[in-house]
Amino acid sequence: MVRKLMNNKLPRYFEEFNNNLWSVEDDRDNMKLYYRVKEILSTRISPFQQVNIIDTYDFGRCLVLDGVMQTTELDGYIYNEMISHIPAITHPNPSKALIIGGGDCGVANELIKYPELLEIDMVEIDEVVVEECVAKLTKISGNAPRDNRVKFHFTDGVKFVKDKKGLYDIAIVDSSDPIGPAEVLFSEEFYVDLKDSLKDEGVMVCQSQSPIFNKDILSRTHHILKRHFPIVKTYKAVVPSYPGGMWSFTLASLVYDPLNANLAKLALNTSYINSGVFQASFSLPNFMCDDLGIL
Amino acid sequence: MVRKLMNNKLPRYFEEFNNNLWSVEDDRDNMKLYYRVKEILSTRISPFQQVNIIDTYDFGRCLVLDGVMQTTELDGYIYNEMISHIPAITHPNPSKALIIGGGDCGVANELIKYPELLEIDMVEIDEVVVEECVAKLTKISGNAPRDNRVKFHFTDGVKFVKDKKGLYDIAIVDSSDPIGPAEVLFSEEFYVDLKDSLKDEGVMVCQSQSPIFNKDILSRTHHILKRHFPIVKTYKAVVPSYPGGMWSFTLASLVYDPLNANLAKLALNTSYINSGVFQASFSLPNFMCDDLGIL
Repeated sequence: MVRKLMNNKLPRYFEEFNNNLWSVEDDRDNMKLYYRVKEILSTRISPFQQVNIIDTYDFGRCLVLDGVMQTTELDGYIYNEMISHIPAITHPNPSKALIIGGGDCGVANELIKYPELLEIDMVEIDEVVVEECVAKLTKISGNAPRDNRVKFHFTDGVKFVKDKKGLYDIAIVDSSDPIGPAEVLFSEEFYVDLKDSLKDEGVMVCQSQSPIFNKDILSRTHHILKRHFPIVKTYKAVVPSYPGGMWSFTLASLVYDPLNANLAKLALNTSYINSGVFQASFSLPNFMCDDLGIL
Repeated sequence: MVRKLMNNKLPRYFEEFNNNLWSVEDDRDNMKLYYRVKEILSTRISPFQQVNIIDTYDFGRCLVLDGVMQTTELDGYIYNEMISHIPAITHPNPSKALIIGGGDCGVANELIKYPELLEIDMVEIDEVVVEECVAKLTKISGNAPRDNRVKFHFTDGVKFVKDKKGLYDIAIVDSSDPIGPAEVLFSEEFYVDLKDSLKDEGVMVCQSQSPIFNKDILSRTHHILKRHFPIVKTYKAVVPSYPGGMWSFTLASLVYDPLNANLAKLALNTSYINSGVFQASFSLPNFMCDDLGIL
């Protein structure tokens, strides 16, 4: 495999040395990560980014956007379960859900585990990401592409929510890092539009980056949401394939408190979340309480 | 700084390119990490390993052994608090503690927060590690080196425990990875000796590696301890500077269950652990319960 590639030009973000192929994550100034790659399964240049599906030795198949690991077969379920099941049971009877981003279809694949969810609008700006994940990352995209409750909208999430008023019980923002196409998904204007897209008892959640390396983004997200929602709770999970390991999610709710959720409603076919993990995820370490001004 | 170093030969595990200096962690087959380095504060070759103290852009000062990051100013407190405070309050009235390894003195620096601990034997095989951390990693070693309850024994921990019988209330094994000098600290024979070094109501804890990348070591450690202690509980924390982020600890106890610990006894001057985090750390995700055969 490596020998064959050596005769061609490698795509950007890949390097070959010592007869091994490596995916190079060097978007940070101070840290570079090299993952050993078995095979580059596809490389496509979409209007938004370079989309790669690769097969790695440590993480299995992965989605890589502009050289940055987005989700992996090894641990993608952790992130997807934590961003999906917590809002899904915080709301006691959701019927309509919105996903912004989430092109790997992993969030949709978790939400379809709830039969009471009748409509799931999935809004992803980059159709190429969905095509590739549906074709080659089936362990993550699962049954979502074939579940007729899931409706795909290949458009800008920011524009999509602008004219949606009082429609959704839950909204999930599964964005990539706040650089490039996802930057607007961290703006106050977007969160206000998202709030307006919710029904009166709606619940939203967004990924709010690393509590270690992106303290400013987490704190800003938390405080923006506090200005618009009566209940705002940050929770955490570990995401082994993201540098820093610890990841944060921020839930904002108009009526329901996640700490009062009916844990018996949690879907059973999960690999990470259970009722203990649900509750534990809201126990924040001292430094996060300090950073968020919670006490 | 970099220019000056370019005229000399760099120590092993460091590379210079694009006018930047990098610490290279390449002990794994499938992943390489590069940390950008401000300055190599010291390089010493001990009888056991290459000991470096470096100052990095993302993690502050770090202890690096044979090229592998061991502890950092940014997040060392998470690991040190989780391995120390949990046994320290699981035992209701500990007076004598044993630390095996822990050359950075971070564990000792947590234990001295408990005034009821009157004697702390710290057994580290590599005196060079202690000398360097006491001199240059003071944010982690803290006051431990000057606390006269802490007694340093620069010897092999495996040999040290062999003739210690019924001495300690708590024992903490703060080893490096089970390759090189620390390998024997993961053997059944050592755990049995360690049990014998405890008093009748003793509690021990060891770091049991990544639940993602070292499932075999975690599972083996858990099952070995189950053969010798009536109460064995694995708990988890996030360690951002270890690949995989999630880290496991396994506690083995002759009488006391950590889930019955008096949380009011927890030392207050901590940055990570609090009573919520203490309890949350024992809520294991489904995949860990499966791996450990817990239900």
